[in-house]
Amino acid sequence: MATCDVTGVEVGELNPSRRVLLGPGPSDVSDRVLRALAMPTIGHLDPEYLVIMTETCGLLRRVFQTENELTLAVSGTGSAGMEACVCNLIEPGDEMIVCVNGVFGGRMQDVAERCGADVHVLEVPWGEIFDSSAIGDFLKKHPKTKVVGIVHAETSTGAYQPLEEVSRVVHEAGALLLVDAVTSLGGMELKIDDWEIDACYSGTQKCLSCPPGLSPVTFSPAAAEVIDSRESKVQSWYLDMSMVRRYWGEERFYHHTAPINMTYALREALRVVVEEGLEDRVARHTLNHRALRAGLEAMGLVYIPKSSLTTLNAVSIPEGVDDARVRGQLLNDYGIEIGGGLGPFKGKAWRVGLMGSGSTRRNVSLVLGALESVLADEGVKLDRGAGVAACRSVYSAK
Amino acid sequence: MATCDVTGVEVGELNPSRRVLLGPGPSDVSDRVLRALAMPTIGHLDPEYLVIMTETCGLLRRVFQTENELTLAVSGTGSAGMEACVCNLIEPGDEMIVCVNGVFGGRMQDVAERCGADVHVLEVPWGEIFDSSAIGDFLKKHPKTKVVGIVHAETSTGAYQPLEEVSRVVHEAGALLLVDAVTSLGGMELKIDDWEIDACYSGTQKCLSCPPGLSPVTFSPAAAEVIDSRESKVQSWYLDMSMVRRYWGEERFYHHTAPINMTYALREALRVVVEEGLEDRVARHTLNHRALRAGLEAMGLVYIPKSSLTTLNAVSIPEGVDDARVRGQLLNDYGIEIGGGLGPFKGKAWRVGLMGSGSTRRNVSLVLGALESVLADEGVKLDRGAGVAACRSVYSAK
Repeated sequence: MATCDVTGVEVGELNPSRRVLLGPGPSDVSDRVLRALAMPTIGHLDPEYLVIMTETCGLLRRVFQTENELTLAVSGTGSAGMEACVCNLIEPGDEMIVCVNGVFGGRMQDVAERCGADVHVLEVPWGEIFDSSAIGDFLKKHPKTKVVGIVHAETSTGAYQPLEEVSRVVHEAGALLLVDAVTSLGGMELKIDDWEIDACYSGTQKCLSCPPGLSPVTFSPAAAEVIDSRESKVQSWYLDMSMVRRYWGEERFYHHTAPINMTYALREALRVVVEEGLEDRVARHTLNHRALRAGLEAMGLVYIPKSSLTTLNAVSIPEGVDDARVRGQLLNDYGIEIGGGLGPFKGKAWRVGLMGSGSTRRNVSLVLGALESVLADEGVKLDRGAGVAACRSVYSAK
Repeated sequence: MATCDVTGVEVGELNPSRRVLLGPGPSDVSDRVLRALAMPTIGHLDPEYLVIMTETCGLLRRVFQTENELTLAVSGTGSAGMEACVCNLIEPGDEMIVCVNGVFGGRMQDVAERCGADVHVLEVPWGEIFDSSAIGDFLKKHPKTKVVGIVHAETSTGAYQPLEEVSRVVHEAGALLLVDAVTSLGGMELKIDDWEIDACYSGTQKCLSCPPGLSPVTFSPAAAEVIDSRESKVQSWYLDMSMVRRYWGEERFYHHTAPINMTYALREALRVVVEEGLEDRVARHTLNHRALRAGLEAMGLVYIPKSSLTTLNAVSIPEGVDDARVRGQLLNDYGIEIGGGLGPFKGKAWRVGLMGSGSTRRNVSLVLGALESVLADEGVKLDRGAGVAACRSVYSAK
């Protein structure tokens, strides 16, 4: 195949490397999901595609553990899902509390302000999580709050936020609970109905191990009722759930053209999750996280959050170690991607993801071995083989 | 592979039919593009992916025929591109003229109103197009107009809107010209720089023959300057070009996670366009359109727009013929998809697309033959073989 010259650049045949994706996402995508992605494109109003949409909604409900009718995949990445949730629930002047302890809480604040919300920010330092009683107290200060937004799995810090008590205090105050589950859906326990979450969005490229491009969302009947009784139009036409739901629903009312092949991939990725079983899948993520954690800690690395995700491991970069050089060596010599830090953690944190089909003993072993070698090159004093030995004992004790 | 039961529905292995996509989009996607789509997912900040983004921008500039720096693919379908253009150029209270002669002009009006624009609608009946002098007169009535939005290729009616004169009158009035080129980019002549178009959006699933999911957009330096000098934040965080451009630009500032595999597919689809050459590609679309048109007209079918697209052919459904039955028979017996009508054209129009790699003599012949047979079943009196003969004479005279 010929290359073609575009403004002085030769654009040749596409040939991306096979990476081991152990960063904050995208995660490893199995060949099975890639095969589904590349199935023949059919029309978005083809009777066959309508069945695929219905099946995808059914699978999403199963993985979200919900019976919410309004459950579908927004035609954009996770941030589009965030915006869809906020802009459909909020009307200008509505009060919203946003809990900020990292990039994604901060992003939700920005999105809510752009929607015209009167935003009250509850903040704790990056890496920490929120106590439900602090949220309850904050709600007493802002009794007209319509929505409380919080991040279940803060991808920027690796912090895990328990939600059951939070949900109780939010509902006692008569507000709706909006949850960012981008890095937890399909990897950690997340029970939309049992925990009474009113609106939740996620991404495809984390624990579902599907390429990025869609955002699963779900709205409780109470949230759907808020959308139905809006006085103003949703400011985004593209993300207006009152129209999008008619497109995904039985009516099949034309809205936009859904990303057809991405829906194929999501459907297949969800089938993989359901076949494994949610409990087994969560247990697998927990086990591999514990093994990795034991290994990293045995190598002297320190976890940043006290309450860590099992899907993403954020550790401090040891004193004197060059962030870019380590990650570059992992990428170039081993083909392994891990993530750097964002914002105040830039240059100070690594983020190692074990998500979806990437959460395996092989990957735990691989990254520990490679990291030990690279850190030795950096002059870090290490107890040789301690990482691998520590992780082995976790698997043996299982 | 086992099926899995989801809320009473067995979700089995994905196995979509191979359709011949001759509707209003998606169009036929070649195996070459599907292979690119299914290449291994890599990280969105991987140095290899950054090269792919740069190459994709370069290819987009080539296909848009522009040197605009701000040229990229929005992470959503064509309607997201529409919203991105409008919401970045418009601030609340700005005056905007929207030219409405079909679904997509109407959609632009809705989007602009949601952005807080003071919208002035210039309307002609569906299927007709706009005279530049009428636009000039309308601009005199609304001298503070900031943006004039118009559809180059109205997918709902098949009408083709020439733009060169429109551009002149819009710029004489000191306004910016915003163009919907969803169904023309890569299939019909579209010269962003020569025609001085200030902002333009398209989709991947029409004449580029790529699956839906991305929206190519381009902004002239004047439009970029308007974005840079905004007083208010863009109401959509997801579509805020001041941030998205930093992600696509040299800075690679993290915004959202791009749809990586979709970018692979778009890059490959654009390579196909550049390899064929834009002029040859436009000529191919013109020839196949002329042949199809000769055939359809010989069968007694009447084109709806006087000024027809070459990429999409909208014809009236003959009296007494059942729309759903004909399209159902084409789909079920031949695996051919053609489109029905929208809005006032529902049940009254068929839309036959010959877009991208679907614009071939084989498809012209196929759809004429199948349609003759199906129409005969419907009791339409036809001059037997007239369609195929008429189209043959177009190819012979070439």
